[in-house]
Amino acid sequence: MTAPQVVPDVGHAAGLARFSFNQATAKHWPLEEAVAGCVDAGVPGIGLWREPVGEYGAQRAARLVRAAGLTVTSLCRGGFFTADDWRTENLRAIEEAATLDCPVLVLVAGGLPPGSRDLDGARQRVADGIAELAPHAAAAGVTLAIEPLHPMFCADRCVIATLGQALDIAERFEPGTVGVVVDAYHVWWDDTVYHQIARAGDRIAAFQVCDWTTPLPEGVLLGRALPGEGCIDLRRLRRAVDAAGYTGPIEVEVFHADVWARPGREVLDASVRGYREHVL
Amino acid sequence: MTAPQVVPDVGHAAGLARFSFNQATAKHWPLEEAVAGCVDAGVPGIGLWREPVGEYGAQRAARLVRAAGLTVTSLCRGGFFTADDWRTENLRAIEEAATLDCPVLVLVAGGLPPGSRDLDGARQRVADGIAELAPHAAAAGVTLAIEPLHPMFCADRCVIATLGQALDIAERFEPGTVGVVVDAYHVWWDDTVYHQIARAGDRIAAFQVCDWTTPLPEGVLLGRALPGEGCIDLRRLRRAVDAAGYTGPIEVEVFHADVWARPGREVLDASVRGYREHVL
Repeated sequence: MTAPQVVPDVGHAAGLARFSFNQATAKHWPLEEAVAGCVDAGVPGIGLWREPVGEYGAQRAARLVRAAGLTVTSLCRGGFFTADDWRTENLRAIEEAATLDCPVLVLVAGGLPPGSRDLDGARQRVADGIAELAPHAAAAGVTLAIEPLHPMFCADRCVIATLGQALDIAERFEPGTVGVVVDAYHVWWDDTVYHQIARAGDRIAAFQVCDWTTPLPEGVLLGRALPGEGCIDLRRLRRAVDAAGYTGPIEVEVFHADVWARPGREVLDASVRGYREHVL
Repeated sequence: MTAPQVVPDVGHAAGLARFSFNQATAKHWPLEEAVAGCVDAGVPGIGLWREPVGEYGAQRAARLVRAAGLTVTSLCRGGFFTADDWRTENLRAIEEAATLDCPVLVLVAGGLPPGSRDLDGARQRVADGIAELAPHAAAAGVTLAIEPLHPMFCADRCVIATLGQALDIAERFEPGTVGVVVDAYHVWWDDTVYHQIARAGDRIAAFQVCDWTTPLPEGVLLGRALPGEGCIDLRRLRRAVDAAGYTGPIEVEVFHADVWARPGREVLDASVRGYREHVL
């Protein structure tokens, strides 16, 4: 008789059954410490990024997370279809998601190619790229999740700027193969967003939260705040994705230099607090 | 017999019949110099702002512009319906537009009230405010032109974030009373914008152009570039507003610290060049 495997008792901290901590929220927290921190805090899910996973090793990261009893809720990110190496990179990203038992690969479309003003052309490249990846994703059991980014990123990061636009592409494929990400930061301003969330239904592959504050910093990439520190009605969005039938994880994903400067555990605890008070 | 009044021969510089120079593009150029510069360059129209007009005196500005043979194409701006003094300020703005023989008062809606997460409520206040102003505008012969601002301004400046949303409000009124502004900078990213421009038809009260470059500066307010220096397909947008039936002025409106640091006449000439090469 072997001793029973010790699996940490995660997911039982009150109200945290759907909570997931995106590792980018505490960017400088080493993966092993982040995983241990999540277990200690009773957090059941973690969202991972390809760069730190690649540095740690995907197989090794998969073993680490699995041994801790955590679930990888999403892998960021594939996409960038307007870059030359998009095919190789995305096939690798699908493989990494499968290795991590991660059901969702987040796709950020990419911006306009340098010097281009052809927005329609760039958008067509995104749709074509997804069509090419879809069979590979289906074979790997990974959902490609199109993430519309806030329109302020349209030129340089993501030509898919609204949830409606993401759904226009996603709906050409099976729901389990291509879905969408609802990220509060990117969609909160849209007067059609509640309609589009209802339309999305079982296409919602991930739900991410953080908050919006002003003034935005230079480059606008690191302007996100912890839930509750800005003006987004996160609870209303959470209720809307719930009403659309989404029962999956809710990731707290924040990028901000001030947040990154704080100790990882402190950021995790603040994320849990913001989630409990402003999302649940 | 009196000597014939000398009216400068404006509007005849090749291709400039619809060109208008928004004075904010050369923010630090004194009004008298800007007017003289426009006349000298063969520019027929100028867009004015309430603050410099107020400093100069509205009546006096009206005489200055009229004597120069220029047309005031728009007055910026009314709106900010979420501020406490919106009613007084907007009635004053309508009066100023009438004084200037300016047919179009640009309305920027205003952001969320401090501490608020009630975006629907803020939007309702905008629609209610416009309904209250409409009879006054109609009586003064001024069109209230709702300007959707880029969604990155939704929290702090303008809860009206798309042309479609602006039209949803404008369509409750007579076209001559409430219209919309199509500003390339604010709408270029929108995958529905060409559909919305066609829908707008005779609601288009103003068309403004400038260009989009990255990285955006801190606060994102002064991130605009001269036409041709960024990634917006300005010619396609111009063709679309033309196809919708718009025959009015095309204003070059740029806010950028580097542009403001240059001599006014140099900025005007660069605006004319950008207009000829990338808009016409």
